[in-house]
Amino acid sequence: MTTVGILGGGQLARMLALSGAPLGLRFLVMDTEADACAGQFAPLLVGDYRDEAALAEFASRVDVATFDFENVPAESAEWLATRVPVFPNPRALSVAQDRLVEKNLFRSLGIPVGEYAAVSTRAGLEAEVARIGGPCILKTRRLGYDGKGQFRIKSAGDIEAAWQALGAQADAQAEAVGLIVEAFIPFQRELSVVAVRGRDGEFRTWPLTENWHVDGVLSASLAPATIDDGLAQLAYGYANQLAEALDYVGVFALELFCKDGQWLANEMAPRVHNSGHWTIEGAETSQFENHLRAVLGLPLGDTRMLGHACMLNWIGELPDRNTVLAEPAGHWHDYGKLPRGGRKVGHATLRDDSAGELSAALERVGGGLQRMPQVDPVLKALQ
Amino acid sequence: MTTVGILGGGQLARMLALSGAPLGLRFLVMDTEADACAGQFAPLLVGDYRDEAALAEFASRVDVATFDFENVPAESAEWLATRVPVFPNPRALSVAQDRLVEKNLFRSLGIPVGEYAAVSTRAGLEAEVARIGGPCILKTRRLGYDGKGQFRIKSAGDIEAAWQALGAQADAQAEAVGLIVEAFIPFQRELSVVAVRGRDGEFRTWPLTENWHVDGVLSASLAPATIDDGLAQLAYGYANQLAEALDYVGVFALELFCKDGQWLANEMAPRVHNSGHWTIEGAETSQFENHLRAVLGLPLGDTRMLGHACMLNWIGELPDRNTVLAEPAGHWHDYGKLPRGGRKVGHATLRDDSAGELSAALERVGGGLQRMPQVDPVLKALQ
Repeated sequence: MTTVGILGGGQLARMLALSGAPLGLRFLVMDTEADACAGQFAPLLVGDYRDEAALAEFASRVDVATFDFENVPAESAEWLATRVPVFPNPRALSVAQDRLVEKNLFRSLGIPVGEYAAVSTRAGLEAEVARIGGPCILKTRRLGYDGKGQFRIKSAGDIEAAWQALGAQADAQAEAVGLIVEAFIPFQRELSVVAVRGRDGEFRTWPLTENWHVDGVLSASLAPATIDDGLAQLAYGYANQLAEALDYVGVFALELFCKDGQWLANEMAPRVHNSGHWTIEGAETSQFENHLRAVLGLPLGDTRMLGHACMLNWIGELPDRNTVLAEPAGHWHDYGKLPRGGRKVGHATLRDDSAGELSAALERVGGGLQRMPQVDPVLKALQ
Repeated sequence: MTTVGILGGGQLARMLALSGAPLGLRFLVMDTEADACAGQFAPLLVGDYRDEAALAEFASRVDVATFDFENVPAESAEWLATRVPVFPNPRALSVAQDRLVEKNLFRSLGIPVGEYAAVSTRAGLEAEVARIGGPCILKTRRLGYDGKGQFRIKSAGDIEAAWQALGAQADAQAEAVGLIVEAFIPFQRELSVVAVRGRDGEFRTWPLTENWHVDGVLSASLAPATIDDGLAQLAYGYANQLAEALDYVGVFALELFCKDGQWLANEMAPRVHNSGHWTIEGAETSQFENHLRAVLGLPLGDTRMLGHACMLNWIGELPDRNTVLAEPAGHWHDYGKLPRGGRKVGHATLRDDSAGELSAALERVGGGLQRMPQVDPVLKALQ
């Protein structure tokens, strides 16, 4: 009997545990919160990721460890790796935790990225904004996700506010936080490659997914994305290079902008990813099961799609469940969380055999839930 | 937040809990065994189904109750139903628990059955075997499953042994056990209808499934079964009549023999059924999710198939997991049980887009696991 330890006990850990049960696995989830939603279906150890005693107990009760949360301190991951196998490896985790290191790696691998520069002073920020030209985004190098830790600089007049918002903290914590300024990419489309690499180096991707964000948070995903095959192969190649360079084991997502028919890499997420949730019903093997297969050294499962799938995220609170369940193509995912503004509390996946059937289902669900703005961009992409 | 109580904590309860988590449900499982395998993913209450204190605690902690085990005493189900909604209703459960009452119901509904008769004495057994003629099977009216509580009577010379094996107990417990003697049906095929009926009476079936048994225990299932459409519609109609007659809510299976192009009903199982396990990967909505949707009064999910699916049961111990996982069409289900002779410890489902691809996958898996005798009848049916 194998017990998989998961650092972080949110919906990703929950879906990992649910998908791993049929493989005969048991789980132990560690989270700082006693009501972490994965704890409803797996034993939960409550503790701080920096607490060595808690980590030691965690290590003593698991055979292998992985993450639902990418911002587990790299030192904690490293310490843990001296006790049990940890996948992805702590180096991959630490690269993905730092936007600057990550972008440097992309560039070194020939994966195209927009202009960017490290920033450590206000004067430096001014100089880099001037050099890059046009709108920029100031970001913390670490601990950013879902649009948090970001400030848009439309013109030089925004520099002071941006610095006050993010620079003050950077100053206080000096090197520990750090900032990066990036050119704003006026992209036409956002897509992601969700990929998996096994312990033996075997690499597979699910079909490219197109994503739409609202206020920096994923709102909808569509797979397969309609895209030129040459472009798709390029994207899969980037993901493969990245996985090789990091000796990555498990599932990860590479987020890409598409601008004028060219790719620009945005960032990678070293874990199962919100843009891969549709794989539960829409692919032969889900990202959750394949992450576990990879981490355990089992053969990877087939990543082929079953028709067409669209995932709609529920943020803050759940809409009417029955509208989705009444839809033949509708699948519901309630994470068992209390409603709270901005919180990801669930999602729905619509899966159908053809793009036309999927469009019709999306129109009914969007209309029924009065959420046409959420489904409209997906409908346009399906036309 | 809704908590579903499940009486019985085996693999059926386990798969119900796993499939119900995305609906936002929580579970409480009650079983007589502290190591019941559903307890690995849901809270487990250990107690005897006849213990009123344990049942009262169970009732106080759940919003609705259902079964993973059809032999929960009918009185316990009735008692429980005075405290919380119970689906299927205790009457449906009690009918399905008694082969004689069940067969009488089939007959009254015009669902064809083979010859049978109640037996309460040795002389009565001799008389009925003589009347029915040819081989018969003596069975206990209650508590039989997977071929247990049965004795084949090939000729009059077997009557004494049959009576010793089953009649002695029947005598001791008088009416409580009781026996039924049935004509042995020299059927060509065994099939099952897995069906679901909602609280509002909505009725759906998955496609007919063909089944193969070894020593009375299900060995393999194939869906969709290759069958004349008229015959299939008849079978779905029988299931519908049965569900209406019992005001049944939830999933059940109707097991049918096919002999010379005619149906003969064997029995019904008032719960999710082993011959419906393929629906997890092979149908838009699984039997487990639809059972919960029905019990909770939610809209029923689509029962259409995704291609072709074959389920292989693992009895006693699990074969090599990687042989199945390496197969693109392969899905593994380990119930988290200790190996033990005759015990259902897991299953695999192979799902593929065409019958030809499924055949090829089955040949590889059967060969790889040295289990060709298990897959051979399925391969023949796929030709």
